[in-house]
Amino acid sequence: MVNETQHTCSASSSSKSDGGSSSGSESSKDSSRCSTPVLDADRHERLREKMRRRQDSGDKWFSLEFFPPRTANAAVNLISRFDRMGAGGPLFIDVTWHPAGDPGSDKETSSMIIANTAVNYCGLETILHMTCCNQTKNDITGHLQKAKRLGLKNIMALRGDPVGEEWEEEVDGFNYAVDLVKHIRNEFDDYFDICVAGYPTGHPEAESYEEDLKYLKEKVFAGADFIITQLFFRSETFFKFVKDCQAIGITCPIIPGIFPIQGYHSLRQLVKLSKLEVPQEIKDVIEPIKDNDAAIRNYGVELAVSMCRELLDSGMVHGLHFYTLNREVATTEVLKRLGIWKEDPRRPLPWAVSAHPKRRVEDVRPIFWASRPKSYIYRTQEWDDFPNGRWGNSSSPAFGELKDYYLFYLKSKSPREELLKMWGEELTCEESVFEVFTCYITGEPNKNGYKVTCMPWNDDPLATETNLLKEQLEKVNRRGILTINSQPNINGKPSTDPIVGWGPSGGYVFQKAYLEFFTSSEIVTALLKALKKYESRVNYHIVNVQGQNITNAPDLQPNAVTWGIFPGREIIQPTVVDPVSFLSWKDEAFALWIEQWAKLYEEESPSRMIIQYIHDNYYLVNLVDNDFPLENCLWQVVEDTFELLN
Amino acid sequence: MVNETQHTCSASSSSKSDGGSSSGSESSKDSSRCSTPVLDADRHERLREKMRRRQDSGDKWFSLEFFPPRTANAAVNLISRFDRMGAGGPLFIDVTWHPAGDPGSDKETSSMIIANTAVNYCGLETILHMTCCNQTKNDITGHLQKAKRLGLKNIMALRGDPVGEEWEEEVDGFNYAVDLVKHIRNEFDDYFDICVAGYPTGHPEAESYEEDLKYLKEKVFAGADFIITQLFFRSETFFKFVKDCQAIGITCPIIPGIFPIQGYHSLRQLVKLSKLEVPQEIKDVIEPIKDNDAAIRNYGVELAVSMCRELLDSGMVHGLHFYTLNREVATTEVLKRLGIWKEDPRRPLPWAVSAHPKRRVEDVRPIFWASRPKSYIYRTQEWDDFPNGRWGNSSSPAFGELKDYYLFYLKSKSPREELLKMWGEELTCEESVFEVFTCYITGEPNKNGYKVTCMPWNDDPLATETNLLKEQLEKVNRRGILTINSQPNINGKPSTDPIVGWGPSGGYVFQKAYLEFFTSSEIVTALLKALKKYESRVNYHIVNVQGQNITNAPDLQPNAVTWGIFPGREIIQPTVVDPVSFLSWKDEAFALWIEQWAKLYEEESPSRMIIQYIHDNYYLVNLVDNDFPLENCLWQVVEDTFELLN
Repeated sequence: MVNETQHTCSASSSSKSDGGSSSGSESSKDSSRCSTPVLDADRHERLREKMRRRQDSGDKWFSLEFFPPRTANAAVNLISRFDRMGAGGPLFIDVTWHPAGDPGSDKETSSMIIANTAVNYCGLETILHMTCCNQTKNDITGHLQKAKRLGLKNIMALRGDPVGEEWEEEVDGFNYAVDLVKHIRNEFDDYFDICVAGYPTGHPEAESYEEDLKYLKEKVFAGADFIITQLFFRSETFFKFVKDCQAIGITCPIIPGIFPIQGYHSLRQLVKLSKLEVPQEIKDVIEPIKDNDAAIRNYGVELAVSMCRELLDSGMVHGLHFYTLNREVATTEVLKRLGIWKEDPRRPLPWAVSAHPKRRVEDVRPIFWASRPKSYIYRTQEWDDFPNGRWGNSSSPAFGELKDYYLFYLKSKSPREELLKMWGEELTCEESVFEVFTCYITGEPNKNGYKVTCMPWNDDPLATETNLLKEQLEKVNRRGILTINSQPNINGKPSTDPIVGWGPSGGYVFQKAYLEFFTSSEIVTALLKALKKYESRVNYHIVNVQGQNITNAPDLQPNAVTWGIFPGREIIQPTVVDPVSFLSWKDEAFALWIEQWAKLYEEESPSRMIIQYIHDNYYLVNLVDNDFPLENCLWQVVEDTFELLN
Repeated sequence: MVNETQHTCSASSSSKSDGGSSSGSESSKDSSRCSTPVLDADRHERLREKMRRRQDSGDKWFSLEFFPPRTANAAVNLISRFDRMGAGGPLFIDVTWHPAGDPGSDKETSSMIIANTAVNYCGLETILHMTCCNQTKNDITGHLQKAKRLGLKNIMALRGDPVGEEWEEEVDGFNYAVDLVKHIRNEFDDYFDICVAGYPTGHPEAESYEEDLKYLKEKVFAGADFIITQLFFRSETFFKFVKDCQAIGITCPIIPGIFPIQGYHSLRQLVKLSKLEVPQEIKDVIEPIKDNDAAIRNYGVELAVSMCRELLDSGMVHGLHFYTLNREVATTEVLKRLGIWKEDPRRPLPWAVSAHPKRRVEDVRPIFWASRPKSYIYRTQEWDDFPNGRWGNSSSPAFGELKDYYLFYLKSKSPREELLKMWGEELTCEESVFEVFTCYITGEPNKNGYKVTCMPWNDDPLATETNLLKEQLEKVNRRGILTINSQPNINGKPSTDPIVGWGPSGGYVFQKAYLEFFTSSEIVTALLKALKKYESRVNYHIVNVQGQNITNAPDLQPNAVTWGIFPGREIIQPTVVDPVSFLSWKDEAFALWIEQWAKLYEEESPSRMIIQYIHDNYYLVNLVDNDFPLENCLWQVVEDTFELLN
């Protein structure tokens, strides 16, 4: 008979083990039947695993350090900066901790809240610094518990600067960073990834460089996962430090801290604080140009790029940590020149994911918050679990109310004066509102010469995808169909498509055409007549501020409007039109007329009354064309509506 | 300003209420987030609701009564009949209860097990008869508990025939059907739908027709949901009965019991049992032809059709209940002539659903059991919950072992002699096995002139869908790629497509091409080489009987291979290739070689040894082509494999 060669597993390089999974008898029933396909391994790993994976793959990375801002406005700006710098793909960011600034409080400028925002609202892996000196065990445990509750998974454990001139050890107190590391491991087991600081030239207060290395080893052996170094000016300093660490048995990753010189004063201040000595050759260059910020920054960038190249070329360095001083330009420039700033147009899902560990499995959201993902995250922050695979057909869980429009991560980036210029110092009629919507779509300046770059429902210019619909959108907005959300139909484009693609490569993405707008009751009446012709093809939901609700959704079921098919995976359907959560969105969508727009004007002013009138009388409408392989019929629906009106 | 007409909900006929769903604050969190889209309302309603809905819609229905068979072989045949008659769309079937036949036991011929099979394995809404006379409360409660556990939801509550000549009421015993109705409502609340019997001419033991109507009213008022009548010979009998019932306040549905006369002896026996009088005009026709079964049956069909027409035309009747006597031809003929036999080619899902209430949400299964749905149901019967929406990526819950090949719902419909004719009285080499597979695919007779209409992995002829691949399948089977499961790729065909469509209309269905086969280790070695070229496009799983497993599935995730997009609904993905459950399927697929095929032959016989050799040495392979919009590449993969072999 045929040959008897035993075919073994090792014949294929991609073979999986023949043991382990072969029984199929592990019965973690609940968790196994409805888990999320791993679309993005990053979302499922802890920081130290990500670091290891990047080291193994040889894929160099960077991270960014920020300090908490002093004012609420500065916080708004910092969050925008997180979004912009997040686009370059940092492995993590970290937020410093200043005991004098009430860092664990709920203030919008506290370290805790800034880190919380970075994780939850900006989707960034984040390390929160924490110092222990002069603090009680209870205080520290409280901070750590709060951090855990907010979804923070990483702590940079520091001693912190002692308060007062003469610092003395407290018996049983937290005197050194190592005490904090031990405390975290004692109280929180392996929950947090812990980072500690390394001093390439020794801690200024240490008796000696060698003595300081011993302290570092203690911190690592107490449970730290990796080390970030204090800044240094020469790559040799770092190489020697790493070798000395290795010589005494420190094997965890050591990440060099990079400080691109950005100005004379910031350098002086930092040097004073860190008690470092600036090499004479650097001083020689800087002193003569000390009043020329741009020149110093250019020099700083050059210096940083060349040192970083040496570090990366050494093979000893897999990632670079940047002290940004909350500034964008210099660090971004260095990263781009190094080629490790990677704006990846591919999105794991078509919406901005949160990095909170609870939301790891989240892979479907209602489409309504497409332009307000931070608001969606805020309103669902109390959920204990997140939709995974399916949205559900009967009733959505309660959405938190959105009353806190002042919250810095929900505020418009533009100040009141700019908003007035964009949306009109004075409105005279509903048509002047139509005009604002139209200018936002077209990108043309309004009659006073200002471009409308944001709207109450959308703090950013039009998405590239929406641009595909620009011409049609302009037409309908001019006539009082005030669009706030839309997407074209897509019948199987590659998942790598630069405009509509998302998810892993080799897949296909699909969409049903969607259109959402405010409009008058007059138009709604005609629209309902026009929709009769499309009854089986178009699903609609029409609601006014009082909650009067008209829909043809079967059994109030959600309608999947974005989905993707990928090799070797279950189907992902990340956006749905959900009839029930639409009513939660409607509260927010109507309130934005008042909160963001009407309140720009004096009470009782005609402008304010016009917005108030729209708020009170218009309907919010959404339409889905279910026949995604055919030409989008929603424009024809609107056309038919206007014909009925004439 | 614009008109102030208040637009109200009532403007649209399809509007939903503006109350109720507007709050979105119901927080049945767990149930709401992952529920199944209602694809098939039928699956989610109880029988009395289905009945009401059909009455409201004017959609006439029928139901079928069967009695438990005497032998295991008869049970196998009855189950096939359930499948065939189930295709005509009965609203329910019912299974009678004969105390002498141990009806509540676990025997394969008991009423309980036959009803269980109808519900779970044939997906039929089923009523189990139950009698109470001469039984203890404990026995009855035990039967009801067992019925509930097996997924039965409907009971026909009967007194049953007293044992012995002289029957006397027992004090506190179950003397009448009403006692059983009360008991069910007391002990099981509203869990069961309860049906009771009505006697259009009065119960033979009742003092009078009027007295009997009073008993019927008692049964209804004790909690019965509807009435099925004893057979009758004239429609006026039924009309009078319904009016008399209504006159005394019985308002529940009354369903006429129809008895198509099928033979002289069965009629006489029934008449004797039921103490009914056959009208003279019927006797006059039948007596002269009493030895001509076909003639009597034709007459019976005529008679039934004309009486049913009168019943339906009266407007008083919404459904007809047929006493089938476990026969198929006459009842089917009547139903077809009445136009209420409705073979609906549309399937709610692409596989045969079970009617067990626990499995209501089930909407995804591994593709492996496509031709063995009853085995899949059997092996997953102990699951507490069923996959809903997603299959899960880490490990499937344990599958029950399939050792009970003798179970009547798992047995081949064909007897041993027929199987030998199809699969060969004597096998001489592996190629004679290839020949059997090839004949099954082509439909051509084998060299002894017999058609191969079933295989161990497939008890039915080739599915229409598989026919699309016939030519290619024939080619590869001839060369030793022994296919047992396959589907073509489909890129968005209408959900109403007669061959590949499923689910509600207006949708689009999709498939990835799939091919599953046994083959030699020699071919597997070449196949793995050939697959290198298709690495990112084709997912494979290759396993032998010992469980050696070779796969390129990412993270052992399931791969969706059938999915549908429907108007106003979430996406349904009813079949997946799941790497973990493939290993449970492999045990079954390999065992079928031995259990169904090898055991046809004598031990140590060459035929048996050939099958045993294949079982021991072949691999089970499955292949998925992920690029569903392109031409199926799996045939090219096989072609490349054979080229490498040459």
